[in-house]
Amino acid sequence: MLQMYDLAGEDPALRFSPYCWRSRFAAAHKGLPLETIPWRFTDKQAIAFSGQGRVPVLRDGAKVVHDSWAIAEYLEDTTPMPALFAGGATARAHARFVNTWADTILLPAIAPLIIRDLLDAVAPQDRAYFRESREQRFGRTLEELQADRDTRVAGFRQVLLPLRHLLRVQPWIGGAAPSYADHIVLGTLMWPRCVSHFELLQPDDPVAEWQARGLDLYGGLGRSAKRV
Amino acid sequence: MLQMYDLAGEDPALRFSPYCWRSRFAAAHKGLPLETIPWRFTDKQAIAFSGQGRVPVLRDGAKVVHDSWAIAEYLEDTTPMPALFAGGATARAHARFVNTWADTILLPAIAPLIIRDLLDAVAPQDRAYFRESREQRFGRTLEELQADRDTRVAGFRQVLLPLRHLLRVQPWIGGAAPSYADHIVLGTLMWPRCVSHFELLQPDDPVAEWQARGLDLYGGLGRSAKRV
Repeated sequence: MLQMYDLAGEDPALRFSPYCWRSRFAAAHKGLPLETIPWRFTDKQAIAFSGQGRVPVLRDGAKVVHDSWAIAEYLEDTTPMPALFAGGATARAHARFVNTWADTILLPAIAPLIIRDLLDAVAPQDRAYFRESREQRFGRTLEELQADRDTRVAGFRQVLLPLRHLLRVQPWIGGAAPSYADHIVLGTLMWPRCVSHFELLQPDDPVAEWQARGLDLYGGLGRSAKRV
Repeated sequence: MLQMYDLAGEDPALRFSPYCWRSRFAAAHKGLPLETIPWRFTDKQAIAFSGQGRVPVLRDGAKVVHDSWAIAEYLEDTTPMPALFAGGATARAHARFVNTWADTILLPAIAPLIIRDLLDAVAPQDRAYFRESREQRFGRTLEELQADRDTRVAGFRQVLLPLRHLLRVQPWIGGAAPSYADHIVLGTLMWPRCVSHFELLQPDDPVAEWQARGLDLYGGLGRSAKRV
């Protein structure tokens, strides 16, 4: 069976990595059983075999793949159906724009809305590392970063404009059915969902309606995930 | 031959609509000859046969298609090769995210950097309409909108992050070869290129390098376009 190292909180059932969720949705899409191994930021040794220090790391027998995009490509190439990128190379290339948008725009827009909540979700042994590395990256305390989120959330919702307009004309980013492009964004949104009770979306937002459908995919994989 | 109503300046050779350029690149990609008919904002009557008042409007014999996305789909469905969305429905669905991103994020980010220059490019009979409609939309004068662009351009370049990261890992948005997703963004960038001398991109930006390759496509269609 496929094994994947998956970021966890103190409760090993709490899984909240936006990248690991992309891979979990991708494996579920293909109907591939996936054993997820709880991992914490300070467990660098446990994944040293992958040659780097971040999750997701996928093990398929002797084969090791890290990085969520590489894992999606690996799954697609080894188990072509049901396709993550139906029709091939162009669908895949276009999905990668969704991936870079999620990484460079969506994640940084979510972070300052939930990052102090996130500190409470990470395992106790990870908290010093988490606070120090994130405060260094952003140049502010986690408390400062999350301040005034009730007013700032309007700006976040503007960031979703391209997705909102898309979902007014088609039910999934992949068109008539979900593709890996949906998993990228659904997976990214599992991150705030699992660690915070802060409402990022208004209920009548087409993005919220799409997310609700996405949470029900694959037997409710997203919907049943542990939350704080 | 295909005919397309195409926004023009006083000089009918000056064509600067970001939407019309998407369609011109798409037709060129397919090797389809396209007669472009210069049109101005105040020529609503000339395209009334399309049932609406905006360009591009494509005529293919008795068939009339308006809206750049609908034109791309029409060209793809009537002349499948060379494909704009190789592999089919998923590539097309994913490209539509690039289209909504260009419409809701990229175009509004470019507008305040070039909109006063644009006024000088539109035909004299269009200028009152252009100034009034745009100043009403943005709630500021065109001069105010374009002020301080030398400092604001840094923010614009941030908007391109997802594209920049993408073009570090693949030569085209379409992957190994250009797709309609490339035409969407190249076409959008023809708009500032044709009406302004303001430099939106730094020369070592991967986006600028990709744009340079795009300008050379189809016999230099973009490169040879008339500029102010």
